[in-house]
Amino acid sequence: LKRRTFIGIDIGGTNIEIAAVGVSGRLLARESIPSNPERGPKDAFVRVAEALPRLLGKRRALTAAGVGCAGLVDPTRGKLHASPNLPSWRNAPLGRIARRHLGVYTVVDNDANAAAYGEYVCGSGRGTRTFICITLGTGVGGAVVLDGRLLRGRENFAGEIGHMTICETGPRCKCGNRGCLEAYLGSDALLDDAMKRLETKRSRYLSKWVASRTRPFTPKTLAEAAGGGDRIARAVFAEAGSHLGTAMASLINIFNPDAIAVAGGVANSFDLMRADTEKAIRQRAFRESSRAVKVAQAELGTDAAAVGAALLARDSQEYERSTG
Amino acid sequence: LKRRTFIGIDIGGTNIEIAAVGVSGRLLARESIPSNPERGPKDAFVRVAEALPRLLGKRRALTAAGVGCAGLVDPTRGKLHASPNLPSWRNAPLGRIARRHLGVYTVVDNDANAAAYGEYVCGSGRGTRTFICITLGTGVGGAVVLDGRLLRGRENFAGEIGHMTICETGPRCKCGNRGCLEAYLGSDALLDDAMKRLETKRSRYLSKWVASRTRPFTPKTLAEAAGGGDRIARAVFAEAGSHLGTAMASLINIFNPDAIAVAGGVANSFDLMRADTEKAIRQRAFRESSRAVKVAQAELGTDAAAVGAALLARDSQEYERSTG
Repeated sequence: LKRRTFIGIDIGGTNIEIAAVGVSGRLLARESIPSNPERGPKDAFVRVAEALPRLLGKRRALTAAGVGCAGLVDPTRGKLHASPNLPSWRNAPLGRIARRHLGVYTVVDNDANAAAYGEYVCGSGRGTRTFICITLGTGVGGAVVLDGRLLRGRENFAGEIGHMTICETGPRCKCGNRGCLEAYLGSDALLDDAMKRLETKRSRYLSKWVASRTRPFTPKTLAEAAGGGDRIARAVFAEAGSHLGTAMASLINIFNPDAIAVAGGVANSFDLMRADTEKAIRQRAFRESSRAVKVAQAELGTDAAAVGAALLARDSQEYERSTG
Repeated sequence: LKRRTFIGIDIGGTNIEIAAVGVSGRLLARESIPSNPERGPKDAFVRVAEALPRLLGKRRALTAAGVGCAGLVDPTRGKLHASPNLPSWRNAPLGRIARRHLGVYTVVDNDANAAAYGEYVCGSGRGTRTFICITLGTGVGGAVVLDGRLLRGRENFAGEIGHMTICETGPRCKCGNRGCLEAYLGSDALLDDAMKRLETKRSRYLSKWVASRTRPFTPKTLAEAAGGGDRIARAVFAEAGSHLGTAMASLINIFNPDAIAVAGGVANSFDLMRADTEKAIRQRAFRESSRAVKVAQAELGTDAAAVGAALLARDSQEYERSTG
């Protein structure tokens, strides 16, 4: 008898992270493939299905699959409405496509909801009652878990923390608004900020890398430069951290949460932002609300959304079985 | 046998609104007395107790009392921690003081929580599952009702919507932060904005009233001037409405609510703000989330917090009786 296994598929603007998770919630295996969103959602799920044998091995059978996708997702219909970072996937019936190519019970949710759920069940949100997770990647997402349940709202669109206004007169965001958190902290915003600083200043690594084009210019190389002491890269993360702290301060004043976690690829650089994030929180949030809040990098790291999607599939299937 | 009656006491920076409410939730009588916060909380409750016979009449008996107070309130201990608009009341044991002077079961909560609960039970929030109420008065408060329960957070400090950052570089707020919603929409902010505009422009009523000091300069007179077509007063409310819309857009993106109500004294001027509020929402919130949201003035008007406090007392006493 093969062992029951859940697969979680985290679809971002750049990569698709796939995680295989056991019944206990333990991460068994993971793989990352490029999103290539221009090739459409069917192509993406064909490639996910091709990865399955590698992830499951011979002794495990796929029981259910969870899809976490960037953008406005309708979990009840398994549909992606719109996603600023997957513009050509508008109205894609992800649940139907996933079920066809994977052949099992499937749930679809927003990627940030999945990450928050993963962190709540087996990461930095364990044991909390009011938990917020902010996902930093190509875009900026978020989700709120209250007493173990995701905050969903009227049409399941709650949690778009990346599109809180941080400054009314701020830079344009892909969503059409001005001054959204994402317009400061999305990966394009970080890179734009670095390029702008490079116009007037030089720094140890970035000046060379950008001029010679020897390295791809991504948030990851930006983080490497900052880790090596590059002052422009450090300034970019410090300023991003301050804006993140402004958003967290508003969320602390609104939710008075137990904990806030930072997930997604750019969260690997949270240590470069932390001091400025915490300073902004101290300056901006009510002390009574902020003093006990735990602000931390997601324990599941970049796997949070994929693991969380698998756990959403596990728990949703369990719930449907128990209620008939 | 006298009829059971609940009293709600809404303590703001300027006035105390007292409401007598029947078992059904119906408002029976109301009275407004000045807060005179400098005279301390005991003095305030002595004056509330003096008003009781007028509010109850001969055929009604006081069953329980609810206190809604501006600021950070701990409902479990009945204590006011800190309130920017009642600075000298820091750490006042409001529950104990109220019980001593009124002699009945008492609950204490944040005034905005009380207003939201009142509107949820018998106002513009009836029948909603995700409901937000923003209170515009001396300060700006807020509260969120999810599936009939107030969002409370770790220490019961959730809902401080007035202290969301609207613009990081914005004007100083009494809380110490910069660019809070309250720094744009608190009553002092509205009056300051009008005075600033009067330095360089003249208008039909305000120029005269301010120069001659024939009328007190309050949000109410500002609203009267706007109602009469005074262009400076109208511009003040229009700009305030736009900032309110920015905050609502963030809340819509975070909560995807069914409805948002505007309560408190300044909400009487919501018609002067509405067009700019709705414009900012259209510009800033995801259309998918904003198209179905109902934005309205609180149906209970300036009585929302007082009626809501009475209903919180009614329902809390009922709950404690039913659970022993």
